Parts: sequence; structure tokens; C-alpha cells
Amino acid sequence: MNPDVAWPVWSRERAQRVESALEGALPAADESPQSLHAAMRYAALGGGKRVRALLAYASGELGGADAGLVDHAAIAVELIHAYSLVHDDLPCMDDDVLRRGKPTCHVAYGEAVALLAGDALQTLAFEVLAKAPLSQAQAQIAMLAEAAGSHGMAGGQALDLAHVEDALSLNELERMHALKTGALIHAAVRLGAACGRALDQAQSDALDRYAAAVGLGFQIVDDVLDVEGTAHSLGKTAGKDAAQGKATYVSLLGLDAAKIRVAELRDEAHTALLAFGAGARRLNELADWIALRKN
Amino acid sequence: MNPDVAWPVWSRERAQRVESALEGALPAADESPQSLHAAMRYAALGGGKRVRALLAYASGELGGADAGLVDHAAIAVELIHAYSLVHDDLPCMDDDVLRRGKPTCHVAYGEAVALLAGDALQTLAFEVLAKAPLSQAQAQIAMLAEAAGSHGMAGGQALDLAHVEDALSLNELERMHALKTGALIHAAVRLGAACGRALDQAQSDALDRYAAAVGLGFQIVDDVLDVEGTAHSLGKTAGKDAAQGKATYVSLLGLDAAKIRVAELRDEAHTALLAFGAGARRLNELADWIALRKN
Repeated sequence: MNPDVAWPVWSRERAQRVESALEGALPAADESPQSLHAAMRYAALGGGKRVRALLAYASGELGGADAGLVDHAAIAVELIHAYSLVHDDLPCMDDDVLRRGKPTCHVAYGEAVALLAGDALQTLAFEVLAKAPLSQAQAQIAMLAEAAGSHGMAGGQALDLAHVEDALSLNELERMHALKTGALIHAAVRLGAACGRALDQAQSDALDRYAAAVGLGFQIVDDVLDVEGTAHSLGKTAGKDAAQGKATYVSLLGLDAAKIRVAELRDEAHTALLAFGAGARRLNELADWIALRKN
Repeated sequence: MNPDVAWPVWSRERAQRVESALEGALPAADESPQSLHAAMRYAALGGGKRVRALLAYASGELGGADAGLVDHAAIAVELIHAYSLVHDDLPCMDDDVLRRGKPTCHVAYGEAVALLAGDALQTLAFEVLAKAPLSQAQAQIAMLAEAAGSHGMAGGQALDLAHVEDALSLNELERMHALKTGALIHAAVRLGAACGRALDQAQSDALDRYAAAVGLGFQIVDDVLDVEGTAHSLGKTAGKDAAQGKATYVSLLGLDAAKIRVAELRDEAHTALLAFGAGARRLNELADWIALRKN
């Protein structure tokens, strides 16, 4: 496996770009209330693969979007993602102590401040879009809210909770993940594209297929890495799903079949992008990276 | 004290109106994930004074706003308020068991579901505005986000946390409450007004003064009622602040001076509204009600 295929060079520049943009969008750590702002920055900065931001930038290129406009979408999806991790790691949820190679937010700042930091990160995501000079800001906010809310990410987390220790069918597992991770990945792709020229219906449908394929592929790779990876390589606790008896793609399909499914989804993503020309190069590269990543 | 002054008749109709509007905006309880949707409805429906919604409707009348438009703003502020109560009542925050005369959301649904319900109620607030046919939706979303986030309500909660058991000056207490309760009350007033004809600068400033006065007045009355009220009359645990050794207007000013301050703020609110004509009648009535309320 060629590491250059798995981690495109441009993505490093864009990951740094969204880091700076997030840095600027977050309140300074010495601004009152300091504990809250420090916790927000701790949770949102300095880590993560930024895959949602990268997808937003890459799909912005389909319609020639200015990267300066896509920044707002990229920040917003990363803030929603960061908030979800903070709340997901809380003792009443996954009770996790390690995230992105650091103590989780509530370990570092206490539960109450972490709760508020997650809350305020969510709010900030909407504030960023609402203050951006985007011609379609209202529609983009609606899209992000749908993806984050009870019919999207939060809904997926509720299904996940309800299913712990339940036998889960493959269909139920896919539905849960389509909400829990898929919805925000889909939103990242759509929000980026919305910053550029309008797509025709066939292209729009193709982009939805791409987003669905990489969203599911991303999750299956997560399950594979949870089995094969180490806390060191992942930056978070490994082997948790099995320890909790949670259904995963690996537990339901087996490791080999899960990997075959990842390869199929990568092909589906590439096939969907045939509807576009050279503008889809970076989306194609991200489909590879998502399938081949090691953390 | 005349109860008709304290509880204007029109406000009952409007409280019912926002209840129906919320009912329609919230996902049905039998929609998957059921536990999450049931918890969201439990937390947002069937209770509360709806003071934020009433303020939005009343200030909409300054510029002749259609109540159907103000509904969106009223729902949004009530959803933000409901989310904040759910999270504020969690064990890692105030650890409260009684709210609006019922067990708190986490007592009824468990901590994890309550956490997600609060999260999804916040998201829904922004979704409602983003999907509303409001000519100023983007600006209204920005306004609501500022009021709810780390420089508003969530920031006030963080200050409150940091100050438990601290000696607090009156200035610090006012700053904390200006954020914790004042910011969302201010947003309710501004969001309602934004649904009507534009105000001139003098009117806009006057409305800000009104909002600041009723916001602070509302909080001082809360502190007074926490001392004088019972759980039965309040629908929530009484005497909590004193039990936790928290600084309140009553602990810093004494009961009599706190009541005098409420009366002064009521006057300030009425004086601010002199900038308006008869359109301010309901805002005037709410200033009375906020000062004279018994729960």
C-alpha cells in the first residue's frame, strides 16, 4: 500500500488551513469565561484527521468554489464533530479517557465544563455559518442542522445507546451508522459543494452516492482499526467495541468480509464521481485515503 | 396586587399558541429513535411560563409582525431554553430532580438520553429558524447563536460554575446573570422585533434597554422566589441557592432591597417603551408580569 495514495499531499495544506481557520473562529483562551474557552479550544484544535473539512474543500472544487468560502463550511462541520466527541466521551455516554492522543475533555476540564464546551461548540458551528458571506447560508444552516440533529448524528448516537448489548442486524447497524457518522460526512460534502456553482440533478445525485459510500466506508474502517489498531496508532482507546460487546461490521461480517466491503465502497465512490470531470480529483483521492487509512 | 395585571389574558392564548407550534416542530414520539424524541418532547412541551416566547410575540407587535412569522422565533428561543434546562439539571451540573413540577429529563430518561435530547433540542432551534420563511433568517440565527453560546447563555453557566462557593460582588453577579438568563431574553425580544418593520436607531436602543431591564428583573425575582416560594408553587426545588451557598441578589442585597430593585427595573422597562406607541402595550404588560409573578 502506497502511503502517498493514502494521504494526499494537498490534504496536509488543507488540514493546516482549517486548523488556522478554527483557531481564528474560536474565542481566545484568555477571554472570559476562560475555563469554557480553554476547554472549547482543547477539544477543537490540534488534532483529528479533519476528514470532514477535507471533504468540504474537495467537494467545493467540483463547482470551483473559493476556498475562503469553503472555510466557513469546513469550520462548521469540524465544530459539530468536535462537540459530538466531547459529549460522546462523557462518563454517562462512552466514558472514554483518551481522544486524539490526549486525555478527553472532561478528564482535562471536569464534566460540567466539558458539557458546556460541547454545547458551545455546537452553537459556534451555527454562528460561523450565520455570519459567513454565503449566498446560501440559510439553506446550508438547515442542511447542517438536519445532519446534526435527532434525525442525523444525535439520532444515531441514541440508536447506538439503545443497541448496546443488543443483537443487531447488519441493516440496523448500517442505519445507525448512516446517522451517527454518515449524516455529518454527507453534510460536509454537500456544504462544500454548495459554496460553488450549482450542480445539475444527476451530479447532485452522484454526489449523494459518493457521500454515502465514503461515509459507510469510513465507519467500517473504524471498526477494522478498532480490532487491528493500537491506542498509540489510533490516539484513542482500541478494542473498545469488542470489550463492550457492541455489534460492529467486523463482529457481524468478519474481518476479511469487512475489508472487502471497504474496497467495494471505495469503488462505488469512484464510480459515482464519473459524473464529474477533473474537478473530482481530490474527492477521488479522499475516497482512497478513507479506505486505506491506518488511523 | 391584582392577578390580572400580573398575568395578562392575551398571554394565555400566546402560551397555547407556542405550545402548539412547538408540538408541531418537535419530531413525533413514535418516530425513531423513540427514546430521544420522547425525551425531547418531555423536556420542551407541557410546561414553563413561556416568558421568552411571550416576549418575542409582544415585541413583534412593535413593527406589526405577523404572528405566524414570530412563531418561528418563539419556538427557537423556547427550544434553546429547554435544552439549557435539561443540561443544567444533569448530575454533573446542578443535579436537580424536579423541573416544571415533573421529574427532570435525566431522572425520567437517564443521563445519556437526556444529554442527547438537550443537544438535539439546541440543533432543532437553529433548524427551525433556518427553515422559516424569514427575510432576515441569517441575521436572526446569528443573533440566537450569539445569545446561546460562550459569550451568552453557556458562558453565563460557566461563570456560575466557576463562582459556586466564591464570594461574588454585585457586579460579578450581574455580569453572570446578564449572560446566563439575560442574553436569551434579549434575543427573544430582538428576534420577535426582527419579524416586523425595521426600528429606527433610537427605538432599537430603547428596546435593548427594555430587554436588559426585564432580563435582570426576571432573574432577581427568581432569587426572591427561591427564598419565598415552595417547590409546589415553583414546580422546581426551592431554597437551592441558599443551600448551595450561592451568591444571589437576595444574599447580596437582602430581601427588601432586592424587591425595590425589581420595582426600579420595572420602571426602567416602562420608561424605555415610551419610545414606542400603543404597539408596546404587551411589552409593558410583560414587564409588569415579570416583576409581579409568583412562580
